[in-house]
Amino acid sequence: MAGTVVLFSTLTLNLLHLALAFDPSPLQDFCVFDAKSPGCKSPGTVTADDFFYSGLHLPANTSNPYRAGLKAARIPGLNGQGLTLARLDFLPDGLIPPHYHPRASEILTVLEGSLEVGFVTSYPNYKHYPKVLNKGDVFVVPVGLVHYQRGVGRVNTVVLSAVNSQNAGIVEVAAGIFGAKPVIDSNYLAKAFRLDKGTVEQLQSKPWS
Amino acid sequence: MAGTVVLFSTLTLNLLHLALAFDPSPLQDFCVFDAKSPGCKSPGTVTADDFFYSGLHLPANTSNPYRAGLKAARIPGLNGQGLTLARLDFLPDGLIPPHYHPRASEILTVLEGSLEVGFVTSYPNYKHYPKVLNKGDVFVVPVGLVHYQRGVGRVNTVVLSAVNSQNAGIVEVAAGIFGAKPVIDSNYLAKAFRLDKGTVEQLQSKPWS
Amino acid sequence: MAGTVVLFSTLTLNLLHLALAFDPSPLQDFCVFDAKSPGCKSPGTVTADDFFYSGLHLPANTSNPYRAGLKAARIPGLNGQGLTLARLDFLPDGLIPPHYHPRASEILTVLEGSLEVGFVTSYPNYKHYPKVLNKGDVFVVPVGLVHYQRGVGRVNTVVLSAVNSQNAGIVEVAAGIFGAKPVIDSNYLAKAFRLDKGTVEQLQSKPWS
Amino acid sequence: MAGTVVLFSTLTLNLLHLALAFDPSPLQDFCVFDAKSPGCKSPGTVTADDFFYSGLHLPANTSNPYRAGLKAARIPGLNGQGLTLARLDFLPDGLIPPHYHPRASEILTVLEGSLEVGFVTSYPNYKHYPKVLNKGDVFVVPVGLVHYQRGVGRVNTVVLSAVNSQNAGIVEVAAGIFGAKPVIDSNYLAKAFRLDKGTVEQLQSKPWS
Amino acid sequence: MAGTVVLFSTLTLNLLHLALAFDPSPLQDFCVFDAKSPGCKSPGTVTADDFFYSGLHLPANTSNPYRAGLKAARIPGLNGQGLTLARLDFLPDGLIPPHYHPRASEILTVLEGSLEVGFVTSYPNYKHYPKVLNKGDVFVVPVGLVHYQRGVGRVNTVVLSAVNSQNAGIVEVAAGIFGAKPVIDSNYLAKAFRLDKGTVEQLQSKPWS
Amino acid sequence: MAGTVVLFSTLTLNLLHLALAFDPSPLQDFCVFDAKSPGCKSPGTVTADDFFYSGLHLPANTSNPYRAGLKAARIPGLNGQGLTLARLDFLPDGLIPPHYHPRASEILTVLEGSLEVGFVTSYPNYKHYPKVLNKGDVFVVPVGLVHYQRGVGRVNTVVLSAVNSQNAGIVEVAAGIFGAKPVIDSNYLAKAFRLDKGTVEQLQSKPWS
Repeated sequence: MAGTVVLFSTLTLNLLHLALAFDPSPLQDFCVFDAKSPGCKSPGTVTADDFFYSGLHLPANTSNPYRAGLKAARIPGLNGQGLTLARLDFLPDGLIPPHYHPRASEILTVLEGSLEVGFVTSYPNYKHYPKVLNKGDVFVVPVGLVHYQRGVGRVNTVVLSAVNSQNAGIVEVAAGIFGAKPVIDSNYLAKAFRLDKGTVEQLQSKPWS
Repeated sequence: MAGTVVLFSTLTLNLLHLALAFDPSPLQDFCVFDAKSPGCKSPGTVTADDFFYSGLHLPANTSNPYRAGLKAARIPGLNGQGLTLARLDFLPDGLIPPHYHPRASEILTVLEGSLEVGFVTSYPNYKHYPKVLNKGDVFVVPVGLVHYQRGVGRVNTVVLSAVNSQNAGIVEVAAGIFGAKPVIDSNYLAKAFRLDKGTVEQLQSKPWS
Repeated sequence: MAGTVVLFSTLTLNLLHLALAFDPSPLQDFCVFDAKSPGCKSPGTVTADDFFYSGLHLPANTSNPYRAGLKAARIPGLNGQGLTLARLDFLPDGLIPPHYHPRASEILTVLEGSLEVGFVTSYPNYKHYPKVLNKGDVFVVPVGLVHYQRGVGRVNTVVLSAVNSQNAGIVEVAAGIFGAKPVIDSNYLAKAFRLDKGTVEQLQSKPWS
Repeated sequence: MAGTVVLFSTLTLNLLHLALAFDPSPLQDFCVFDAKSPGCKSPGTVTADDFFYSGLHLPANTSNPYRAGLKAARIPGLNGQGLTLARLDFLPDGLIPPHYHPRASEILTVLEGSLEVGFVTSYPNYKHYPKVLNKGDVFVVPVGLVHYQRGVGRVNTVVLSAVNSQNAGIVEVAAGIFGAKPVIDSNYLAKAFRLDKGTVEQLQSKPWS
Repeated sequence: MAGTVVLFSTLTLNLLHLALAFDPSPLQDFCVFDAKSPGCKSPGTVTADDFFYSGLHLPANTSNPYRAGLKAARIPGLNGQGLTLARLDFLPDGLIPPHYHPRASEILTVLEGSLEVGFVTSYPNYKHYPKVLNKGDVFVVPVGLVHYQRGVGRVNTVVLSAVNSQNAGIVEVAAGIFGAKPVIDSNYLAKAFRLDKGTVEQLQSKPWS
Repeated sequence: MAGTVVLFSTLTLNLLHLALAFDPSPLQDFCVFDAKSPGCKSPGTVTADDFFYSGLHLPANTSNPYRAGLKAARIPGLNGQGLTLARLDFLPDGLIPPHYHPRASEILTVLEGSLEVGFVTSYPNYKHYPKVLNKGDVFVVPVGLVHYQRGVGRVNTVVLSAVNSQNAGIVEVAAGIFGAKPVIDSNYLAKAFRLDKGTVEQLQSKPWS
């Protein structure tokens, strides 16, 4: 008689390895990223420089069509600490396109210039919360919501951004949809975006990245 | 002498209440949603019907421009259990516009008809993973990524969808950006989406919800 | 003088590796299970088929004494996404014995036939919540509680089950206790189950798996 | 035109309150349970006695058919700290029936006498790990697995048990199944437990709690 | 016969309410702190200003013996988002005493001047990782470790600090031990700190806060 | 045209491996620590002894200046179960210096003798909660707070301690600050602790570990 082994015979094959990284509380003081091996850097070789980054006083590269750039503080010791810090630079009229971070909240502080920032709530209301920030102003973007930033003054704008994940993820909405490779069917996108098919295909032909 | 109270005088005011709901492991067998009070329904009044929903054999309402509809199993006992189940219906050529769930993975099972489903990875690759599903096929959409569905056969398509959150959230990208209220500046959107301003304003004038 | 090293000399040896897999939010878009290595499948080799399973329109094997079977959708891309989906099939009078899932809630949807399902709360009340489900009916089983299912109509019953863990675990109560190897002392089990020792030993002699 | 509101019209109603308690890291130093209100006890009225319990040097009540008892340290300040402590007492041949804790691991320390303890793994192996413990011995029971304890010496046995949840939950398997109210169908249980229906009904007629 | 109710008669009383706040993923877009009620601010009354703070371009109050100060961005919308931001100011030779945050990692960015920062690992090594930071430098302090900061240049030092908790907590070590009320026994502290009792009592007589 | 790749060109390099261990719910029945490999011990070689420790009836080594000692139950099967157990021994006037556990709550049970235990809340109140415990008394120390223990009777004191983490971490405050290597600047510590520089340097010259 077969019994329960047959009953559930295919279920246990679903047990898979999981090699992902997560953001919860660590079980050690730290685990410095080791470029040469899959585990933590050996504690005896860790130095203060593993927790250090230099250069956020210098602007990010803004030589691109959006006239804006991002420069993240790459720090091996951040591994497992649930934080990332970056500097955003905007030339006048520079912008970052609408995007969201699947895995983090964000807090922005304006160091120089003026920034318009806004986020939109989820279905079904899609309420828009915009705000113009000046030097010393701070704004919070709730986790997972679409938001945007653009420089709105006559001078360059400098912003510090902190997010509460080691790898927040970025999905730029326009690039993610019209720049996806292979392309998403243009008939579908035309209906979903209420654009004509030609416009969609024109968008899809542009270099999004 | 003032000492440390002055040093940190403004920090502790940041301690705020938190009345949100989360998806971790519960501390009780269950906490049935009580429409009449903020806590759990009194255990003595809980019945099996609090864990029950009837009607997923009947189609969702598809009388809308997208020719598709969603019908969720509303179950008070799901509160705190980290799951939601819904039925999706598509008339031929029916579609659900590109969207993402900020707080859940999704698994789809086709019960009738044929469905095209696809998701796109995050920055910087925006790789598109499309698949046509037929009866008995299953597909997973990773948490937080933009995805889409549409009926691709000549007959109606019926799909069961399970997500691993009590409230996964839905952000339809087009509606969230072009239907946001108050409107997002059309100059900004024109640049970000590489559309002309007139097209953006036309989109913004449509009824997205 | 020795100082604190002696004071706590044995504690730090308790620091152990932890190679387990968990169900929290991932730090990457996905981590497809790689049968050939301990980490994730290389992103460049991932295809849509890694998120796909075909065959849930076909019944599970019910040629066993319980006249019931389970067929899980084995999908490499489910790794780290916190969901599992399965199809349950019951011949008339087919049954799944009382069991619990240590690591997941479950939501059941009846596609064909009729199912009796029930769960029992924990100490001290052991309240039983039974329900007969027909086509289109949905029922939730709270995480960690003992529950059961059986086909109650004259025809075959087909059910879809979703659980919110990559590896929910199954403990069939009777098989786990009377089929445990090596056997649990029959005097003890006789007292605990209020059966005579002969009955317990007869149960233990049967093939539970 | 209706648009997306109709498309998803029933989903958002699934957003429910969640008043459950969980075991993650707290956001405050402590939250002492307040018998008189739903929130934390006012910090100004908290005293050291809120973190204190007296009486674990005295045995639990063992005047019951199992000749064993449990006495938990009820401490208002444990609220939110993710731990519970209890003393177990066994007369000679005293026993605690097979049970599991849905929400906690357990660690046992024998203070007096001798204890047999064992746990069984989950489907499909049901491997039994038994061990006899004497004074000063410690044993771990993994979260969610069925386990048992019984005094095995000629003298009383005293055990300290710690679990890593504020409310681990207890499901005694025999009582939960044969003592469930209303009763589970005896035909079903007879098949599932491979007992005759008369034996099942006899078990169900006994007072399990 | 009493059965299991007597066996476990005191355990279930340990089930306590839990009104604490936590830092995991929220189930809603946001939950703005409402000073007037225990729940979230009603969504209809939430405005962009609930996510906004102004004034981090102005220094914190440094008129205290430590010649340093902290100014946190108090933002109702941060509730549930797992982040706090603050500005630290140091006059020349200004300092923040050794302290730790029980519930957060910290990332520091120097905006003006020069800062010495360092942290110490846990038992048994107590290894010290010091670093002098200048404008544009960034440093990470791992969660839960003792650390310190002081201005080391001839000019004022300005630092932005982000932590990944809504309420990281601060324990200043010297103030927490020598300034605790009621006082900790001076004989004990003398032994533990290897100071003479008179010195301990002198420390305890000072105003630490 | 470069587009978004340039915009975010440095961010994705911040994606790091994470090889840390955590304390959430496991995805398997257990993962026994394997001293010989980075993963779990092969299930087929696991025995009941992997969950067992013997010797807590014997005192820890108290031959040190503090006249106290700690003996932890080192158990390979505790890996991933979120618990650690230890025995504390105090000769008369023995003491454990002020310390905190970054990653766990603690619950103490006095088995013999008398213990004074106390903890101090965080900034800004630093309220001290002391309690003298006798045989059978239990006390909880909230996660992350500084606390201390000392034997206060004429006889030896024996205590069982359970913490809800596999690796709670220990930071002894005095040793961590005055025994840190390389030394922390004595001018800084003198100001922060309100001691003269000579006293600080004398403390720093002592062997703390």
